[in-house]
Amino acid sequence: MSDNISLSLAEMRELSENILIDNGFSKDHAKSITDVMAACQQDDCHSHGLFRLFMCTQSMKLGRISGSAQPDVIDAAPSVVRANANGGISLLALDAALPLLIEKTKKNGIAALAINHCYHFSALWPEVEKLSAVGLAGLAMVPSHAWVAPAGGKRGTLGTNPLAFSWPRPGQHPFTFDFATSQFARGEIELYRRAGKPLPEGVAIDKEGQPTTDAEAAMAGAMMTFGGYKGSALSIMIELLAGPLIDDLTSKESMEAADGQPEAPYHGEIIIAFDPNLFSAGKAVANNDRAERLFADIIDQGARLPSQRRYQARERNLARNAVEIPRTLYNDLLALRK
Amino acid sequence: MSDNISLSLAEMRELSENILIDNGFSKDHAKSITDVMAACQQDDCHSHGLFRLFMCTQSMKLGRISGSAQPDVIDAAPSVVRANANGGISLLALDAALPLLIEKTKKNGIAALAINHCYHFSALWPEVEKLSAVGLAGLAMVPSHAWVAPAGGKRGTLGTNPLAFSWPRPGQHPFTFDFATSQFARGEIELYRRAGKPLPEGVAIDKEGQPTTDAEAAMAGAMMTFGGYKGSALSIMIELLAGPLIDDLTSKESMEAADGQPEAPYHGEIIIAFDPNLFSAGKAVANNDRAERLFADIIDQGARLPSQRRYQARERNLARNAVEIPRTLYNDLLALRK
Repeated sequence: MSDNISLSLAEMRELSENILIDNGFSKDHAKSITDVMAACQQDDCHSHGLFRLFMCTQSMKLGRISGSAQPDVIDAAPSVVRANANGGISLLALDAALPLLIEKTKKNGIAALAINHCYHFSALWPEVEKLSAVGLAGLAMVPSHAWVAPAGGKRGTLGTNPLAFSWPRPGQHPFTFDFATSQFARGEIELYRRAGKPLPEGVAIDKEGQPTTDAEAAMAGAMMTFGGYKGSALSIMIELLAGPLIDDLTSKESMEAADGQPEAPYHGEIIIAFDPNLFSAGKAVANNDRAERLFADIIDQGARLPSQRRYQARERNLARNAVEIPRTLYNDLLALRK
Repeated sequence: MSDNISLSLAEMRELSENILIDNGFSKDHAKSITDVMAACQQDDCHSHGLFRLFMCTQSMKLGRISGSAQPDVIDAAPSVVRANANGGISLLALDAALPLLIEKTKKNGIAALAINHCYHFSALWPEVEKLSAVGLAGLAMVPSHAWVAPAGGKRGTLGTNPLAFSWPRPGQHPFTFDFATSQFARGEIELYRRAGKPLPEGVAIDKEGQPTTDAEAAMAGAMMTFGGYKGSALSIMIELLAGPLIDDLTSKESMEAADGQPEAPYHGEIIIAFDPNLFSAGKAVANNDRAERLFADIIDQGARLPSQRRYQARERNLARNAVEIPRTLYNDLLALRK
């Protein structure tokens, strides 16, 4: 018996939507959440695929998240959309606000969407790929919980603060990246802890602020940012742009608000969209060739563009119209049905 | 006899403007260039202070740069200003376009300035601090020359691609950072070469694409990005946003256009401005307190905010109304007068 089980793409979606609805999410929320989770699973991005249904349902059980909140989309300024998620998961608010963000960007050249008062659990790349899919470049940032020390610091103040970017490439997969500004994602430390393996040097500090390779001590202490003081500066910028700029929480405030509960972090998000046509005075096609020469020069020297493994998985899974997930995961997911 | 000489701030400005005018720059260009160079020198930021007058005058001698080009400011879209520097140094174009960028940002919430067809030699922090000085947040990016290899690559494709950000802090110095996305700045490698010192590991590759600690081999090979594949992805994003997005050159194209001449790189620049008032529905004051709590938590644990050394130098130099520069530099600068 294989350790994996194959689900058709339709079965995957149905399973996800049913679990969410069974656990108190409205149909609208279940659809928006499933869109992003299915996109991740379809790309074999397991950490942000169906696995995240546990986080969604657990957050719901803790009783603070709203499964039925309708987002309010606010036309805040000619180039700013605000979407108040009203205590729901961010993704329905994103879907509700996206048409206005796209319209403003195509009219004004650059525009931004601030999502407020949302629970956030999802990868950012499916969000910025919603923009590159319509010919715009997109940049997204979120805070999280204060698990990461600033460069030279002794304790968690910053979130893992991911940054994602997507650039449209007509006729092929976009140029997309999505990375945490911490050295490791929180879940990676947890994997080392479970495996009893030492962490690499320079990834974490203990609760006294001393460097540690002990994953248990790291969980009680703090992670470090990638790239030393530069990564730390970038992470602080993300706190500011996706927090105080948009009238929402920093990672520290979000962690305090969660009061130790293991739920999805509650905070805001900022997404910035750029229209290559308006920025280039209508020369987007010629400049697309210029971007392609850059990509070709990177590939020609044996380097890889980000997301290529994900795109290969996507093509494979779309071709067979199915994803493979571990049987144990499938059984655990079935147990979430009611 | 002291190895340093003291110049009053007015003498410093006068020396800079005179050298530029003597070497073929118009009064307007000389003023814009001097503003930024004096800001750097005043902060004891020697590498981007008066020292850069050598680069400006040398570029001029090579005969391609225009010392008198009047920039064209173009209202490209409701949230996009384009400034065509017409082959001059970027800074006059920036000054000419800044009022419209600020106006658009305060009206629309977010706006961007693309500077095209410019020679660029300056630090970015004085540029984003022109935005934080009027209560806006600013983010600036430029390509340079293709001295930096992408992660996993063997040769230079990316520029040193700096990224600068400034956040306004009413009543005090802004939160500002400005860093190259390469591990080292090009000039740092040159300093190691002159000193005959080995480079740290992980900073550079030789022309066969192999890791090297030899500065000479590194100058012939390529530098590496900071932060591994994450820094590399960020650097590619900067190529795209400050190049093809705005109809201007990538670092590779800029280096090819320079044809081996040691002049200031010729390319474009993008500056994005954010209005905290419009993003926060008028709650910028309350959110400023939130940002200050974040900064306080960083400082409280013994970490430093970026730019603090610079601000200390600024206060010291403003108090004595003078800067100190090496006497040898002063004498070399005098030799640029005609």
